[in-house]
Amino acid sequence: MTDELADWSTAADRLAEVATDRSGSPDAGAPDLVVRARSVAEVQTVARFATAHGIALVTRGGGSGLAGGAVAGTGSIVLDLSGLDRIVELRPADHVAIVEPGVITADLDAAAAAHGLFYAPDPGSVAISTIGGNIATNAGGLRGAKYGVTRDAVLALDVVLADGRLVHLGAGTLKDVAGYDLMSLVVGSEGTPGIVVGATLRLRPRPAVTATIAAYFASLELAAEAAVAVRSTGVQPSVLEIVDGATLGAIDRLAGSHLHERGEAFLLAQVDGTDVTAEVAVVEKALVGATEVRSSTDPAVSAELLAARRLALPAIEATGRALIEDIAVPPSRLAEAVRRVHAVAEATGTTIYVFAHAGDGNLHPIIVVDAEPGAALPAAAVDAADRLFALALELGGSVTGEHGVGLLKQRWVARQVGPDVDGLHHAIKRVLDPAGILNPGKAV
Amino acid sequence: MTDELADWSTAADRLAEVATDRSGSPDAGAPDLVVRARSVAEVQTVARFATAHGIALVTRGGGSGLAGGAVAGTGSIVLDLSGLDRIVELRPADHVAIVEPGVITADLDAAAAAHGLFYAPDPGSVAISTIGGNIATNAGGLRGAKYGVTRDAVLALDVVLADGRLVHLGAGTLKDVAGYDLMSLVVGSEGTPGIVVGATLRLRPRPAVTATIAAYFASLELAAEAAVAVRSTGVQPSVLEIVDGATLGAIDRLAGSHLHERGEAFLLAQVDGTDVTAEVAVVEKALVGATEVRSSTDPAVSAELLAARRLALPAIEATGRALIEDIAVPPSRLAEAVRRVHAVAEATGTTIYVFAHAGDGNLHPIIVVDAEPGAALPAAAVDAADRLFALALELGGSVTGEHGVGLLKQRWVARQVGPDVDGLHHAIKRVLDPAGILNPGKAV
Repeated sequence: MTDELADWSTAADRLAEVATDRSGSPDAGAPDLVVRARSVAEVQTVARFATAHGIALVTRGGGSGLAGGAVAGTGSIVLDLSGLDRIVELRPADHVAIVEPGVITADLDAAAAAHGLFYAPDPGSVAISTIGGNIATNAGGLRGAKYGVTRDAVLALDVVLADGRLVHLGAGTLKDVAGYDLMSLVVGSEGTPGIVVGATLRLRPRPAVTATIAAYFASLELAAEAAVAVRSTGVQPSVLEIVDGATLGAIDRLAGSHLHERGEAFLLAQVDGTDVTAEVAVVEKALVGATEVRSSTDPAVSAELLAARRLALPAIEATGRALIEDIAVPPSRLAEAVRRVHAVAEATGTTIYVFAHAGDGNLHPIIVVDAEPGAALPAAAVDAADRLFALALELGGSVTGEHGVGLLKQRWVARQVGPDVDGLHHAIKRVLDPAGILNPGKAV
Repeated sequence: MTDELADWSTAADRLAEVATDRSGSPDAGAPDLVVRARSVAEVQTVARFATAHGIALVTRGGGSGLAGGAVAGTGSIVLDLSGLDRIVELRPADHVAIVEPGVITADLDAAAAAHGLFYAPDPGSVAISTIGGNIATNAGGLRGAKYGVTRDAVLALDVVLADGRLVHLGAGTLKDVAGYDLMSLVVGSEGTPGIVVGATLRLRPRPAVTATIAAYFASLELAAEAAVAVRSTGVQPSVLEIVDGATLGAIDRLAGSHLHERGEAFLLAQVDGTDVTAEVAVVEKALVGATEVRSSTDPAVSAELLAARRLALPAIEATGRALIEDIAVPPSRLAEAVRRVHAVAEATGTTIYVFAHAGDGNLHPIIVVDAEPGAALPAAAVDAADRLFALALELGGSVTGEHGVGLLKQRWVARQVGPDVDGLHHAIKRVLDPAGILNPGKAV
């Protein structure tokens, strides 16, 4: 096969580079071959070869996944799509971009900005993750409160099937009910039913003004109640985030700031539109019990107000090895969820920081452990993670809101969906990938 | 089986009532049995029976479908879910409703209103169609420009499979990437992979104010260009509609109004929010070339301005038997699409009216024919419909935006998606319904 490919390697150092992602998953061994695809035809060649020989094929983009979806494993072929990074077409009047999967998410947003448009999904990894990876995990982000997740921005996909056939899913229009929605099936499927080699994406006009509202509360319960109140005003914030006191303390230690003394919880909201004066007033009024509220439409001030959220993850990661969890609950149960996350920390003797996309009930409890990257996790951390997943299900939620299943949550997904749906997942996987070569052991 | 069911019939008059829908599909013959389900357990009983005996099972709600999705046929069992019409739970703080499939769409919206919420999808049939039917077709509506289609409001589904098993798809949270998105696969699938017996739906806070902006233009091209301009302002209208001159004439004949003399095209926009003064000004400014613009936030005036859109379909139906088509194109090609629809009318000697959801590029060309309901269609009308579908594909669109495939568009969907994807649709259908009993011959 390699005589048909322009860029491949079996060198140990190159293989080590593509063997894993940012999930901290245990080492699954080195792949046998890495192919950096230069064209869709090359992707088809590799898929046909892998199917013919029954070799596991693991597709990767930026390698920024947090659930192990791109962890390769001994004997596998890694298909690196980061070189397929062209923005093929921007159609400003339709608010549409057609891109290759290796485009960096922030680069698409920048290209859209030149036409007064933006690409709404903004996972924390925008600067390093690819559109293909965002599609594989159905990535969310801060602006999801108003603009939804990656699936809400996907209008059509070009997908190479396990047997090498290239299919086009979705009409590319905003509305389409012609046949089954296989496009949505592929979004969030971690490359297990097919390999995304092209995407037609929805852009949106950039709002004229964005206001940032930052508030501190004496307790996390009060902040969570305020978030519920904001959601019920009729104003749709584009961003609605909560950060707990422990995380504020970590930011203070990293940045030398004094955020934690201002409260035990931080709430950040943004509203965008044509003139958001009235909306800002409504949101401010809903922040009952806040000890401090600041609002601004000045980008410099907004950036300053955003810092307490933007620094949350780096500050936590500065304290130790961070296991980034990702549970979703009904928004009204956010306060209860955070309270019980803290109880899990106490019961297991672990350190757990929490920040949350309060607008859509998606929490990131971060378990910090005293263990080197790649080393086995302490039993207490594993126990804590299991308790967090059980908590998500007990509250009527999901064990993953936006990071995906990967290697880390197989068992929990089966438990969440139940044996019948798990069986359907595998039966559909067999239809699309009879030889089971596409990213085996992930997603389902 | 019938000893396990509370309400069933083999009476000819009752069977005739449930044999078809509002699509005007040719008569496919009377079913053998109609079961009006009283419980999920009864639905499971019927599914098991149909699978065991290889009998076609056609599920129906309000019978308001426009594509033949609920047309039964000789020898089939009709499963009528209109009696499963309870709103099981409203959770205002989460903006969630849990409903049975037979709930009338407008009734859910009214129940939500009591909590300051609304149910966004608003197909023209809201007063008679059911949530189950809306899910089966992924119904759209006027407010889709801002709030999307039915799928965007579905958070989880309870589905009875062909073999009678009950499964729950989706987590019910706003974000969930645990396993494949089978929930989206079921939405718009016309009951062919399973029977929806329950839905967890997203509600939204009712906006404080809605402004209506109505404009007339000397030509449809100008109106379509104005719609593209509005979409690019950064203001997101909740409603953005266009009505052609012929339709205005039909409304005048029905209502005794004088709309057509005001222009050859009517554009209707709504913006909703907290204070939409600035948005209205931006939209008005984008309506370049309008001969007349009126705006109001007064509900009575809004209702009057809406009349030219609200009466479009009844006015056309008053002129003869109406074949309601439903193509989607990229929004920037709307003017071209309408111009070419008119060319199709000329080439085929047919009468075609057009109105469109300009916000999302979804056109409804309405072919009016001189034939009794149920009678065979004139060859010219069939030819015109075929040319419209070909036009949709040529413009990079879809042969159905929101009405579905049903019986009427089988051939065209296969052409739109191509043989490989068509093959996948059928393979997935076989996984979920091996005996092929669920609404056979529909959707895929």
